[in-house]
Amino acid sequence: MKLIRFYKNDTLTPGIICKDCSNTAVDCSSFGEDWNEQFFETDGLSRLHDFLVAKREELPESKLDEVKLAPAIARPSKIVCIGLNYAAHAAESGMEPPTEPVVFFKATTAWAGPNDDVVIPRKSDKTDWEVELAVVIGKKAKYVSKEDALDYVAGYAVHNDYSEREWQLEKLGQWVKGKSADTYAPFGPYVATKDEIENPNNLDLWLSLNGKKIQNSNTSDFIYNVQHVISYLSEFMTLLPGDVISTGTPAGVGLGFDPPVYLKEGDVVELGIEGLGTQKQTAVKEQ
Amino acid sequence: MKLIRFYKNDTLTPGIICKDCSNTAVDCSSFGEDWNEQFFETDGLSRLHDFLVAKREELPESKLDEVKLAPAIARPSKIVCIGLNYAAHAAESGMEPPTEPVVFFKATTAWAGPNDDVVIPRKSDKTDWEVELAVVIGKKAKYVSKEDALDYVAGYAVHNDYSEREWQLEKLGQWVKGKSADTYAPFGPYVATKDEIENPNNLDLWLSLNGKKIQNSNTSDFIYNVQHVISYLSEFMTLLPGDVISTGTPAGVGLGFDPPVYLKEGDVVELGIEGLGTQKQTAVKEQ
Repeated sequence: MKLIRFYKNDTLTPGIICKDCSNTAVDCSSFGEDWNEQFFETDGLSRLHDFLVAKREELPESKLDEVKLAPAIARPSKIVCIGLNYAAHAAESGMEPPTEPVVFFKATTAWAGPNDDVVIPRKSDKTDWEVELAVVIGKKAKYVSKEDALDYVAGYAVHNDYSEREWQLEKLGQWVKGKSADTYAPFGPYVATKDEIENPNNLDLWLSLNGKKIQNSNTSDFIYNVQHVISYLSEFMTLLPGDVISTGTPAGVGLGFDPPVYLKEGDVVELGIEGLGTQKQTAVKEQ
Repeated sequence: MKLIRFYKNDTLTPGIICKDCSNTAVDCSSFGEDWNEQFFETDGLSRLHDFLVAKREELPESKLDEVKLAPAIARPSKIVCIGLNYAAHAAESGMEPPTEPVVFFKATTAWAGPNDDVVIPRKSDKTDWEVELAVVIGKKAKYVSKEDALDYVAGYAVHNDYSEREWQLEKLGQWVKGKSADTYAPFGPYVATKDEIENPNNLDLWLSLNGKKIQNSNTSDFIYNVQHVISYLSEFMTLLPGDVISTGTPAGVGLGFDPPVYLKEGDVVELGIEGLGTQKQTAVKEQ
């Protein structure tokens, strides 16, 4: 199943992508729930499945390529990010590959639709991109073993972990300053439930800037795979249903170029992950 | 007005502390809202005031010292913390006073009642305390000037920013690992609306361990005051109604002792801030 959220006459509408007609957005608003913490917590995916078996024929449809997409699920309680999880990206950032996962948070106010404009903040000129595999947590996770970790996953999606490098690395203190601007977390186009993804640790992922592919890797290059990351995080905090873990980016970010390359107004960023669809953002400068 | 939330027959109940009878918890569940983002966003404090003018006499009461308190407001979208905001605490942490505010996030799953037990996590033995003035945001804040900053405040509360020092400082990467365990953010007993606090930058605050006062300062010792912190943060992220900013702790944390002192099972931590009440936690070890 592929969960989406889209705007229909300006109303945020939860839906799915039709299984056998991939350009069709199916309006699930009559299910009466958003794709949020409560939905995942109360076995929403199974309930939605049953609802679709009973009601699918009655549900309104729209053409997927004609609707504006919202973030594929509701704003989560937390966006937990893993840093430097591909060896080549650690090297381009001038850092050693980590000896344990590096963890940081992104403000959930950064949450954005997959094709929304990315806004370069007013006092900023170092907005950078990071294509990442995002994991959506399906049930409350604490002290989860690596062996059991995938039982706690609802699904997967594309996430662009936009980063303001001056604020992240040159400002005093922690990375969060450079990870949290509005529009810095485009999420979607959809969440594929985990039955659709055979192995999250073997997916091609890529990103292009103005049509030129500059990130191009596979999640098999993870230093710490999805199971490891979920298990590790669950020792330090409780992960809630609907929470998002972003698993780190491969080489090819703007910071790694010599000289570094950052987004300018009008730049177009496209990115995608095998089985999880694509995103496209245009950079605009905040007034 | 003093907002509280308490348990009544195991039901989470939003309420206030009676203005002229301070040991009375007034049940405001008939107002029909929790003290959450939507409440603050929709001018809830004014609406609650009007409701109380009309209905106060009809509302059920409980003895405040006989009810179990919940966190004084609902789990926020983010808990933004300021590090090293008192010069003497920076020194005891072995760090220079910062040249700009140091910012980090705490997982909102750490959210806890003011008198709940603090749980020392399984693989941990460096749980430390930090009494802090917390600011509750009243309306959406972005690019707010210092001059206007207090217009964006709903109220103030006591927060104990519990910290696992090994996970914060000895683990690789960012502080968030050591700030996010369950029960690590006791909040309350109440939120005093800002009209009750003449100057948030001049409040005594203290913390005692097993009856011995070990933190004892005044928010006039802030390196960056409340207005500065709100204005600064609002350049990097949007603050939402109901979000919490914790403004940093003064000297006297366990890390600063020689040798350091960390919580052991059975230890009792009490803390308070002038005009904002007191908290009391007992340390228990997670099974």
